[in-house]
Amino acid sequence: MLLLQIDFPYYGPTGEEMAEGFKDLAHSIAKEEGLIWKIWTENRETKEAGGIYVFENLPALEAYLDMHTKRVQSFGVTDIRSRIFDINEKLSAITKAPL
Amino acid sequence: MLLLQIDFPYYGPTGEEMAEGFKDLAHSIAKEEGLIWKIWTENRETKEAGGIYVFENLPALEAYLDMHTKRVQSFGVTDIRSRIFDINEKLSAITKAPL
Repeated sequence: MLLLQIDFPYYGPTGEEMAEGFKDLAHSIAKEEGLIWKIWTENRETKEAGGIYVFENLPALEAYLDMHTKRVQSFGVTDIRSRIFDINEKLSAITKAPL
Repeated sequence: MLLLQIDFPYYGPTGEEMAEGFKDLAHSIAKEEGLIWKIWTENRETKEAGGIYVFENLPALEAYLDMHTKRVQSFGVTDIRSRIFDINEKLSAITKAPL
């Protein structure tokens, strides 16, 4: 299992309004090959948003990251920061991670 | 629920060796006030590590972040990047997030 961490400057809607606006996108992301889950992150004060993803394998993660980066850029977003990590499953199990 | 994202340059052990070295710390973190869970992240190639945390509330998250930042610094780590986010629970539910 691999973790993908993405964040970027974000000036759009948050909360309920964001949930309504990105509902169809979320349903599409839920069907992505190799995706286990995504948590959607937002911060109205710092004007940042992003996502934390868990993927089954690296090829699926990299294909998604490439596609999603272009998609987010197409919304006019720049300065997208992404990081790919292995998950230390033993330590994460001790700290109650739902994996 | 709030998400805390932390990452930093990391030149220490990964995988099994990291799990063994940080086992006691993980048990201590598991007992932190307000912590729901932590995923431990590591990347041997980019020499980065960190954590993704979910907390019950902001005061607990901020108290942990302050304490943990000092602890990680005491290990000789600099350039610690941390971000606090709200979780968009509706969108995260669509993308199968275990919240």
